[in-house]
Amino acid sequence: MSISTRIEAALETVITRAEGDQTPPGLAAAVRYAVFPGGARVRPSLCLAVAEACGDDEPGIADAVGAAIELMHCASLVHDDLPCFDNANTRRGKASVHMTFGEPLALLAGDALIVMAFDALAQGCAHNPHRLTPLLRTVIQGVGMPRGIVAGQAWESEAHIDVAHYHQSKTGALFVAATRAGAIAAGQAPAPWTALGEKLGAAYQAADDLMDAVSSPDEGGKPTGQDVALNRPSLVAELGVRGAFDHLQSLVREAVAAIPDCSGASGLREIVQAQAMRLTPKQFSRSAA
Amino acid sequence: MSISTRIEAALETVITRAEGDQTPPGLAAAVRYAVFPGGARVRPSLCLAVAEACGDDEPGIADAVGAAIELMHCASLVHDDLPCFDNANTRRGKASVHMTFGEPLALLAGDALIVMAFDALAQGCAHNPHRLTPLLRTVIQGVGMPRGIVAGQAWESEAHIDVAHYHQSKTGALFVAATRAGAIAAGQAPAPWTALGEKLGAAYQAADDLMDAVSSPDEGGKPTGQDVALNRPSLVAELGVRGAFDHLQSLVREAVAAIPDCSGASGLREIVQAQAMRLTPKQFSRSAA
Repeated sequence: MSISTRIEAALETVITRAEGDQTPPGLAAAVRYAVFPGGARVRPSLCLAVAEACGDDEPGIADAVGAAIELMHCASLVHDDLPCFDNANTRRGKASVHMTFGEPLALLAGDALIVMAFDALAQGCAHNPHRLTPLLRTVIQGVGMPRGIVAGQAWESEAHIDVAHYHQSKTGALFVAATRAGAIAAGQAPAPWTALGEKLGAAYQAADDLMDAVSSPDEGGKPTGQDVALNRPSLVAELGVRGAFDHLQSLVREAVAAIPDCSGASGLREIVQAQAMRLTPKQFSRSAA
Repeated sequence: MSISTRIEAALETVITRAEGDQTPPGLAAAVRYAVFPGGARVRPSLCLAVAEACGDDEPGIADAVGAAIELMHCASLVHDDLPCFDNANTRRGKASVHMTFGEPLALLAGDALIVMAFDALAQGCAHNPHRLTPLLRTVIQGVGMPRGIVAGQAWESEAHIDVAHYHQSKTGALFVAATRAGAIAAGQAPAPWTALGEKLGAAYQAADDLMDAVSSPDEGGKPTGQDVALNRPSLVAELGVRGAFDHLQSLVREAVAAIPDCSGASGLREIVQAQAMRLTPKQFSRSAA
């Protein structure tokens, strides 16, 4: 089964179980709207690719972990789009959750998605609780305080920000959780997989900053020009467009080099390079290739 | 050590660990402000009282579970007070979190508190992962979809609401999680403890509706008259003030009767009755006694 098929099936399983038969219909609809159809599923794809490269001896756990990582990501998008943050009207090429369901259900859908992510981990590890504790710890590090995505978003409320630290939390932390959790899901130690997550997270942030600066809203499926409009720290503001692009290319090379020796290393290198191409704004694609 | 001392110490432990050394200062402050000083700590007190009545063979787990239940409650208060829900300017007798730190940090503090609650469970069970899975499931049932507090809040966005079902989710679910998780924390089966949580949750909701209808903001530490102002379903609207008070008294009697046989049953009965008195608005205290 392809990684993409595994992810969509795992998400469907978790959400269907959470809905039960008595979820308020608006909340159930908002949650589905926030998750389906998905974006590129970059983080869970990475997580499952690492699990496969590590032997994937418990595919049910890996599926649950991939779903948990993506649900956390979806929750952060729903909350980030709210009027008190980015006030974004569109996401993934359609109206954002609060534009469609209103602010109260968007806020609650985000909360429900966070809880659901933990439910995925608990259910996925029900027969193997010894993998549950390190998986919880890894996912929590990716999303919570002090250095997860919630903390990253909170740096935007501070007067003084270290841009690298801000980006590591806001974007890098969930990539690191994805690679480390993919290894744990397959029974392997997470430490050798940290650098891959860090490099890819940084590359993704560089690509996102470039996309925000030079793309049309159609290309990314969300508003562009937001970093300047919201006065957010950005690699483009720091290095210029060309500098940010060069930095992105270096990070992709470093990510590929950071893949540890393992049975599936060569396949994983191809996946990482393909993802990197996909992330590059169209006008740079030729020089990236 | 008293239950109250245990709860404050457990909350301090969880929050200090989550802060680490690099949490954005505003987020760290908002989280502490949301948790300290506490309200009555009704839910974690109940959770620890049940654990003690069940023998409390792993007090570290019970402490972590009590903290997790309270952190979930604090998260729900922070999000419920936001302008898109109750738009409450005060909570626990002081300015609400968003009035003090702004909406972005209030929203993120709520998210961080949810994640921190799961961290408490994971850390508390680190040496006993076999209790972790049922504890996670129980807490998730109390807070998530389909019938936890997030779902309860979401019923307010529906045109047609079953009031009993709405209250069971919005308030009862976390009381049920508190009693059941208290039993699991002490290595006992949760099922016999469900009815106690249900009855106390319903009693608490009745008391909250009464307090909203007949008390001053000073007495409850938060705005009153909100159910009528926000056109929310309420027991007072349904049964009148006297009817709601009679119903509250019946529920407390049923809660006391629902306490299962166990070594600590008589102490637990006293705790339940004392909590019930505390919940009753002042003008009813004499007739309740």
